[in-house]
Amino acid sequence: DDIMNVAKEIVEKEIEKHAADGLGRVDYALASGGARVVRHSEPYILAKSSNWLAIGKGRDGVHPKAQKMLEPSFGEPGQCFALQGSSGFVEIRLRTGIIPEAVTLEHVSKSVAFDRSSAPKECRVSAWFEGPDDNPSDRSKKMFVLTEFTYDLEKSNAQTFNVETTNSAVVNMVRLDFFSNHGSSSVTCIYRFRVHGYEPSSSTKR
Amino acid sequence: DDIMNVAKEIVEKEIEKHAADGLGRVDYALASGGARVVRHSEPYILAKSSNWLAIGKGRDGVHPKAQKMLEPSFGEPGQCFALQGSSGFVEIRLRTGIIPEAVTLEHVSKSVAFDRSSAPKECRVSAWFEGPDDNPSDRSKKMFVLTEFTYDLEKSNAQTFNVETTNSAVVNMVRLDFFSNHGSSSVTCIYRFRVHGYEPSSSTKR
Amino acid sequence: DDIMNVAKEIVEKEIEKHAADGLGRVDYALASGGARVVRHSEPYILAKSSNWLAIGKGRDGVHPKAQKMLEPSFGEPGQCFALQGSSGFVEIRLRTGIIPEAVTLEHVSKSVAFDRSSAPKECRVSAWFEGPDDNPSDRSKKMFVLTEFTYDLEKSNAQTFNVETTNSAVVNMVRLDFFSNHGSSSVTCIYRFRVHGYEPSSSTKR
Ligand SMILES: [K+]
Ligand SMILES: [K+]
Ligand SMILES: [K+]
Repeated sequence: DDIMNVAKEIVEKEIEKHAADGLGRVDYALASGGARVVRHSEPYILAKSSNWLAIGKGRDGVHPKAQKMLEPSFGEPGQCFALQGSSGFVEIRLRTGIIPEAVTLEHVSKSVAFDRSSAPKECRVSAWFEGPDDNPSDRSKKMFVLTEFTYDLEKSNAQTFNVETTNSAVVNMVRLDFFSNHGSSSVTCIYRFRVHGYEPSSSTKR
Repeated sequence: DDIMNVAKEIVEKEIEKHAADGLGRVDYALASGGARVVRHSEPYILAKSSNWLAIGKGRDGVHPKAQKMLEPSFGEPGQCFALQGSSGFVEIRLRTGIIPEAVTLEHVSKSVAFDRSSAPKECRVSAWFEGPDDNPSDRSKKMFVLTEFTYDLEKSNAQTFNVETTNSAVVNMVRLDFFSNHGSSSVTCIYRFRVHGYEPSSSTKR
Repeated sequence: DDIMNVAKEIVEKEIEKHAADGLGRVDYALASGGARVVRHSEPYILAKSSNWLAIGKGRDGVHPKAQKMLEPSFGEPGQCFALQGSSGFVEIRLRTGIIPEAVTLEHVSKSVAFDRSSAPKECRVSAWFEGPDDNPSDRSKKMFVLTEFTYDLEKSNAQTFNVETTNSAVVNMVRLDFFSNHGSSSVTCIYRFRVHGYEPSSSTKR
């Protein structure tokens, strides 16, 4: 009886975490929270899909499907942003300025995936602060590396990597570079990328 | 072994409930079931989002994001209907006429929320029946209170309150009034509001 | 302690399966994977919904809501494709050619459903291969039965049926016929239909 109560508690806690966006951790790169993909390498265009060709890039040079990587995937294959080739990058304007603590990269679950060779492998995440009057092209001077990691297909879908820099500056821009993927020469798919941290106005870390 | 079987049963039952819209209870205010927000206090307009200003209210005076509060949120911040200030109201036409038994108010999970000061606090829920030829402005004469409650940020996201009236009339309209929120002076967000009960044609309560 | 660790493992495994599209099994009929409903019997038109009447069938004769049956439902009533009457059919072009192993038919959960009389009952699933130059009207000659089954309202929502044929040909088209439903004379709703199997290029079954 006692055992069953403890078991029930464990279940409820795990389901609560699952229901809270899978991780139960605030994501400052969430599209519905106001974050946006603002720049990226060449998107992957399916030749047979004439619609995509017609739409092409939006007026700001951002592909209409780019924001998919800032939204939940709900375990559904295809709910990703597909980029050309096995290396590339994406730059994201966060919801607000934060002191970053960790990032999470998520691919679709092995059990439902058609093919996982499109998953990113070696990655680097950089960040910087961009003021309203700053010239975006100056970012290379301000950017610093948060973490470098390898996405492991054998581990759980959503893999979290702590920030390794000692620079605790406030940032509102984050860049994900991927230098390789898990085998596809034509396409790399990013299902979801999250940025965790805390706002400078918060007196304490969460 | 026996213990593990019981544990597995508990897990499956809890996941089944979670998968069944979180509560496993019929919701007569669900948008995909045909319910609609038909009237509400001033919506919250983000000045910087020019799109919202452009769209403004729909032709029936209902804000395009109003129906968000009759849809699942899937643990995602921002999937709500935002109203101006710390008090206001929403009126909903239910899918069909029912004898109401309970209502559920849901806010986004603490673990993923950017800010929970926009959660409603002191609330009252009223209901009435509106026939096809009735004048909506006559509702004040027909309305009766179902329940008054306080949404508690320390409890689980989805909080269910039983109907306290002895009036067991059939209703197809429900009004949610909120008189305060958890701290924001500018905005109150309603993530989801549900109405539970049974149809008069059903011979028994569910 | 040991018991609790095992319990936690069970929970995590079950939640992982739930998060992986509910079944943790690849679905070659998934819309986001590229599958499409290409033909179907008369859709159910709600007279009061003038929008539906206006939209009618798309230019290819496929109802705009048809693809709903190839998408997750997330426990939400109404997220289905509604067909007229108690018998009918749907034909689906799969994402790619596969050797089929099983199909899954899913209806909305009993606990949140307004009415389950619209659930399909006696069904037959057939399949064939259609090349790019084949005439779709020749399908009747190529079609063979994969399985016949009865959807049981007392069992779990998502019911999987193994393919019973000894014909292990590659197919890229699947037809679901329903000959009866659970009581409604006017409408049959298909919440989700999935097709499982493996691609001929895969050296081994999964
Ligand atoms: K996504
Ligand atoms: K919602
Ligand atoms: K569906």
